Amino acid sequence: MTKEIRIIQYGVGPIGAGIVRLLLEKPDMRLVGAIDIDPAKAGQDLGLLVGARRELGVKISDQAAHVLKTKADVVVHSTSSYLAEVEEQLFQCIDAGLSVISTCEELVYPFRKHPRLSDKLDAEARKKGVAILATGINPGFLMDKLVLTLAATSQHVDAVEVRRIVDAGQRRLPLQQKIGAGLSPDEFSTMVAAGKIKHHGLPESAAMIADSLGLRLDEIRETIEPVIATAPVRTEFLEVHPGQVAGVRQVARGASAGRELIRLELRMYVGAENPVDELTIHGLPGLRCQIPGGIHGDLATAAIVVNCIPALLKAGPGLRTSLDIPMSYFAGQHNGKEVSSSGFRVPNDNAERETRNPKLDAKGSPYAGEQ
Amino acid sequence: MTKEIRIIQYGVGPIGAGIVRLLLEKPDMRLVGAIDIDPAKAGQDLGLLVGARRELGVKISDQAAHVLKTKADVVVHSTSSYLAEVEEQLFQCIDAGLSVISTCEELVYPFRKHPRLSDKLDAEARKKGVAILATGINPGFLMDKLVLTLAATSQHVDAVEVRRIVDAGQRRLPLQQKIGAGLSPDEFSTMVAAGKIKHHGLPESAAMIADSLGLRLDEIRETIEPVIATAPVRTEFLEVHPGQVAGVRQVARGASAGRELIRLELRMYVGAENPVDELTIHGLPGLRCQIPGGIHGDLATAAIVVNCIPALLKAGPGLRTSLDIPMSYFAGQHNGKEVSSSGFRVPNDNAERETRNPKLDAKGSPYAGEQ
Repeated sequence: MTKEIRIIQYGVGPIGAGIVRLLLEKPDMRLVGAIDIDPAKAGQDLGLLVGARRELGVKISDQAAHVLKTKADVVVHSTSSYLAEVEEQLFQCIDAGLSVISTCEELVYPFRKHPRLSDKLDAEARKKGVAILATGINPGFLMDKLVLTLAATSQHVDAVEVRRIVDAGQRRLPLQQKIGAGLSPDEFSTMVAAGKIKHHGLPESAAMIADSLGLRLDEIRETIEPVIATAPVRTEFLEVHPGQVAGVRQVARGASAGRELIRLELRMYVGAENPVDELTIHGLPGLRCQIPGGIHGDLATAAIVVNCIPALLKAGPGLRTSLDIPMSYFAGQHNGKEVSSSGFRVPNDNAERETRNPKLDAKGSPYAGEQ
Repeated sequence: MTKEIRIIQYGVGPIGAGIVRLLLEKPDMRLVGAIDIDPAKAGQDLGLLVGARRELGVKISDQAAHVLKTKADVVVHSTSSYLAEVEEQLFQCIDAGLSVISTCEELVYPFRKHPRLSDKLDAEARKKGVAILATGINPGFLMDKLVLTLAATSQHVDAVEVRRIVDAGQRRLPLQQKIGAGLSPDEFSTMVAAGKIKHHGLPESAAMIADSLGLRLDEIRETIEPVIATAPVRTEFLEVHPGQVAGVRQVARGASAGRELIRLELRMYVGAENPVDELTIHGLPGLRCQIPGGIHGDLATAAIVVNCIPALLKAGPGLRTSLDIPMSYFAGQHNGKEVSSSGFRVPNDNAERETRNPKLDAKGSPYAGEQ
């Protein structure tokens, strides 16, 4: 009988809280600890903090080292987008013998930007027999995992484009402000230069695609431009006049010998009339794939992190990526059905299945060996 | 340096031939043997038989036991849609210590229909340390793997629908005939009753979805109905009058307590105006995904089989399914820069790639193999 997956939540900001709310609903996943450096959160009950109707009985602590001593299987990590900022936290988890699934965008595919740190994380994780993975919707799924999953249906792939158009007018004020809605073009430029307007992860997705498709890119370039309103736009929170900034258009381009082979575009602005996620694989046969309205960012991010936990724990030790993980919806380990030693549900209630034999499991491979 | 993957092709009918043509172009994959029971093929050079411009140096043999003694890593198996017909062939391969990737539709998710045989295949494969997998586009990807990959972005999933509409008018005569184009409704019913008009795999896909989503279905039902032409349709090969059969509509439904939770529909007919693959996940947040024109069956089937080979060999022993395999495009273990050992040019961004015209790609596939 498979036991519960015991989870420590590291970071209970908006994304972490969304993940916790979902974890509370999932069978076979049990929160056993929580860490947050915010002094206002320390001491509070995790369940009550995220809006559950009753206490969970797990208190949030700012003493990471102490909490990481709790008997657990995996840390769900959600503190920052920057690898430099979370590096220490990751090594803490690894040293404690805990696998990690993180929402840190730079960790989704860190090998180009941080090759040495990637090697180090991988070596430590393998030494400790734990797996580290960062995922999410973007990066982590839409502009990388999904692209490459669809590319499995092509004999040859020449180029890839993904476009994600998000209507920020449906979202909360902090997001609308974060994309520069209502600013003048000059103010927008200033914010971009200060690094205050930036979505993280497009170059990471581009690198993942390039490496998987065997495309040798000369460079991956990223641009951040304003989307200028041509008509007035009113949201619940603010108003944007023609000529003002409605939001942001960010593009990562991977080129080889002057030819653009990978193009990943994110447009997030108020008044976007046709939100959509659109993927195009140029190849044989190639295909186009559209998700009208686009994948819902917040709900889906929590979903994909939680859904990936069981697969991560089966993936084998090391620094893993979305590509290593066969992604699927996680319905629960019991569900009235035994899980066979190969990891799939066998609809045969009479069969006694032997439990997983780790020696027969795939050992997995670090990036250095990963092709 | 990773060595080549040595492959034995078991079955060189239309689908097998398409796979072989692609294998000849892939770096690091080397065909070392070939089996076909057709006496007309025995003794022929495999390369010449599939349309390559020069000999491959591998002769097709009808002596399976002998060919399976060849030093190899995996058998690519493509002989029949029926598990009962291929059972012995699979055990032959396992006994020879060879992993198998197959296009047998019933093997894609055989646990419901063939629970004891599934257990036996799994046990034998694990004993021998080899992996067995059947995949393809449909079943194997579109109505199962892709659905569940997309479902990873949902917190909860209540129901799933997939609809695939194929314009058979673009395909060859045998396919048009195989779907009943030009028949009267009575003739169509007779053919269905005789088992001559049937796409294999919808219930397998439904079972895979149900098990993965934790949906306890009371039953999986399948219906096969004619699509009746309402206007005249003319193809390159035949003409269909109003009232005659234009093709087939096949639906698998999974229901629980009277509620339909899974609905997988395949419509293949001449004169289909809007071919498309459309997936709908009802849940939180759920999503809709459209592939205009639909995935191209023949080319994509060969692609997905070949692309899954490396992942299968890393997946660990036993009877595996598409769900266990992180699917991605396979660019080659050396990143596609080498010339493959068959002498065919490796397609990379710098090389000239001969454009394959699918219509001239004479072999195509009969309906029995059409996904």
